[in-house]
Amino acid sequence: MTRVANFNPGPAALPLSALELARDELLDFEGSGMSILEHSHRGPVYMKVHEEATALFREHARVPAEFDVLFLQGGASQQFAVVPMNLLHAGQSADYALTGVWAEKAFAEAKNVGTARKAADTGDNGRYTRVPTQSELDLDPKAAYFHYATNNTVMGTQFHYAPETGSVPQVLDMSSDILSYPLDWSRIGLVYAGAQKNIGPTGITLVIVRKDLVASGRKDIPVIFRYATQAKEQSLYNTIPTFGVYLVRNTLRWVSAQGGVPALQKVNAEKARLVYAAVDESGGFYRGPVEVASRSVMNAVWNLRTPELESAFVKDAEARGLAGLKGHRIVGGIRASLYNAVPLSDVQKLVTFMNEFRETHG
Amino acid sequence: MTRVANFNPGPAALPLSALELARDELLDFEGSGMSILEHSHRGPVYMKVHEEATALFREHARVPAEFDVLFLQGGASQQFAVVPMNLLHAGQSADYALTGVWAEKAFAEAKNVGTARKAADTGDNGRYTRVPTQSELDLDPKAAYFHYATNNTVMGTQFHYAPETGSVPQVLDMSSDILSYPLDWSRIGLVYAGAQKNIGPTGITLVIVRKDLVASGRKDIPVIFRYATQAKEQSLYNTIPTFGVYLVRNTLRWVSAQGGVPALQKVNAEKARLVYAAVDESGGFYRGPVEVASRSVMNAVWNLRTPELESAFVKDAEARGLAGLKGHRIVGGIRASLYNAVPLSDVQKLVTFMNEFRETHG
Repeated sequence: MTRVANFNPGPAALPLSALELARDELLDFEGSGMSILEHSHRGPVYMKVHEEATALFREHARVPAEFDVLFLQGGASQQFAVVPMNLLHAGQSADYALTGVWAEKAFAEAKNVGTARKAADTGDNGRYTRVPTQSELDLDPKAAYFHYATNNTVMGTQFHYAPETGSVPQVLDMSSDILSYPLDWSRIGLVYAGAQKNIGPTGITLVIVRKDLVASGRKDIPVIFRYATQAKEQSLYNTIPTFGVYLVRNTLRWVSAQGGVPALQKVNAEKARLVYAAVDESGGFYRGPVEVASRSVMNAVWNLRTPELESAFVKDAEARGLAGLKGHRIVGGIRASLYNAVPLSDVQKLVTFMNEFRETHG
Repeated sequence: MTRVANFNPGPAALPLSALELARDELLDFEGSGMSILEHSHRGPVYMKVHEEATALFREHARVPAEFDVLFLQGGASQQFAVVPMNLLHAGQSADYALTGVWAEKAFAEAKNVGTARKAADTGDNGRYTRVPTQSELDLDPKAAYFHYATNNTVMGTQFHYAPETGSVPQVLDMSSDILSYPLDWSRIGLVYAGAQKNIGPTGITLVIVRKDLVASGRKDIPVIFRYATQAKEQSLYNTIPTFGVYLVRNTLRWVSAQGGVPALQKVNAEKARLVYAAVDESGGFYRGPVEVASRSVMNAVWNLRTPELESAFVKDAEARGLAGLKGHRIVGGIRASLYNAVPLSDVQKLVTFMNEFRETHG
């Protein structure tokens, strides 16, 4: 078995140790005589996994006690609707920073639910090549919340500062950079993240939400969509995707073994530094469209001089065991996703390949 | 490794071959150098799995061409809300047959979305010990749809006839008996089912819906909840739980190997016959609360003379490698879930134990 270097944008690389453990006990979980997939979601065997996953996430993300940690279904795309369904009361408006296609979708869905306005838009020039600065934020001091995507997977941009919004609670879509740096929770009302980039498999959506926002959430929506419903039941109001939570737990155990978020942050910075250096020192062979101050540590994007050369790059990389480098269909080009579970050694292989490809085709 | 006999109500027993295949290729799917969990949901490797799962389900359930087959998230509990969000237009009312706790929840959620009325209620005596007969159905000829649960997991009841509702389309919650008998699709507008009982793991919800209902579905709801959104994108509007669909595919391959739904139906009938015979021939030691004509083939429930004796039964069974026999917390007693993947040989072990326990404690 040869495992490739996996730069997929999500679903993405998982820690090898998380997968190996899953494989070894897939037919018989800890001597229970059945797979974790076959255990009751309300039985003691699964509940131990559930509680460990919750505790490890709280530990690594340093979640304060006044927040609930929920494991939900439906992906970040469902949260685009469920956030305003819960938090956007009649007569209120919510602020959205438009910084990419996912932020656009979140904004559109909020308008399907209630009233929402643009607090920033860096896509006016046809391409979101940067995130807004604090001074560009046009904030409504009465907004129900301020929503932004901390990292833009498609565009390759990332907020490297924590916006200030006064007393307006912030809602962060952290699908693609959760657990990659420490968070200042004092500004935050709610964080959501699809698990399939940094913390596990697709099918689990993490929602961390301040308890007062849970309590004051709208009651005129279906029971299943109220955060209060799942908060009261530890995410077990209905049958939870047990295997997904189990794989999140395995991934979080790996986070512990790595030394936690600060250690991952350091390695991630080095991974990003290597890739951007290969772009910047290529004499224009590789060109990064993103403004330097907004470059994402998680998703590095760049272009070559023609789409044909970009295709050749992706194809040659595949042949060298470097997978998932094709840019998103909306923007084209090359994208290397450098999530937590992507080893530094794989990034070094990528950079070696980038330099060789440049020498051959430059 | 000793695998136990698993009578869990869901998540439930999976076919051993489905798990073994998942284990064998968990780190390297078909020589691709990565886990199926790490593949892009839009890449050719996963798409082949997705298309095979869809095709196998269509084949085994004999789904007519005028229906879409969707793999969604959120469980049947989410469909309790999403069905009326899509199909219950302003000014309309929907009919619900109340036959158990899940049907009650579906009814309550419909009332959170719009107008719904009871078309039947067999819980008036405090316990749903039967399903209604056709003549008991109080049908609104103008209803948007008629909703019923074909099998009631908690109560151990099942519809053994196909209700007639004229031109009113029927919505069937088949979470606990999908793919266990052939369906007459001519009456049906929509079928939904959480996968975790008969067709795979928790985290995947199957929705089979008539295309005209998709097309006429409400547009004043969030995009993510419109069936039209997912139907247009083959369930890939957003990131799908890829591993869940993969395990459904493995399970459906096992269905093929068994000879399809007619063969499973035959084995299931024999499994149920054995268990109910052990109850009926126990001289009153075991007592089934459900009316004989409404007995479920999937979930057999019975009582012993005291809760203490029931606890002893569950405990002794566990010690013999017979797991998951405790009744639902709402009704107590014993429940043996006899879904497709529970082997006849495990049911024979259960019946042997039932007879021995009766001889010891009778």
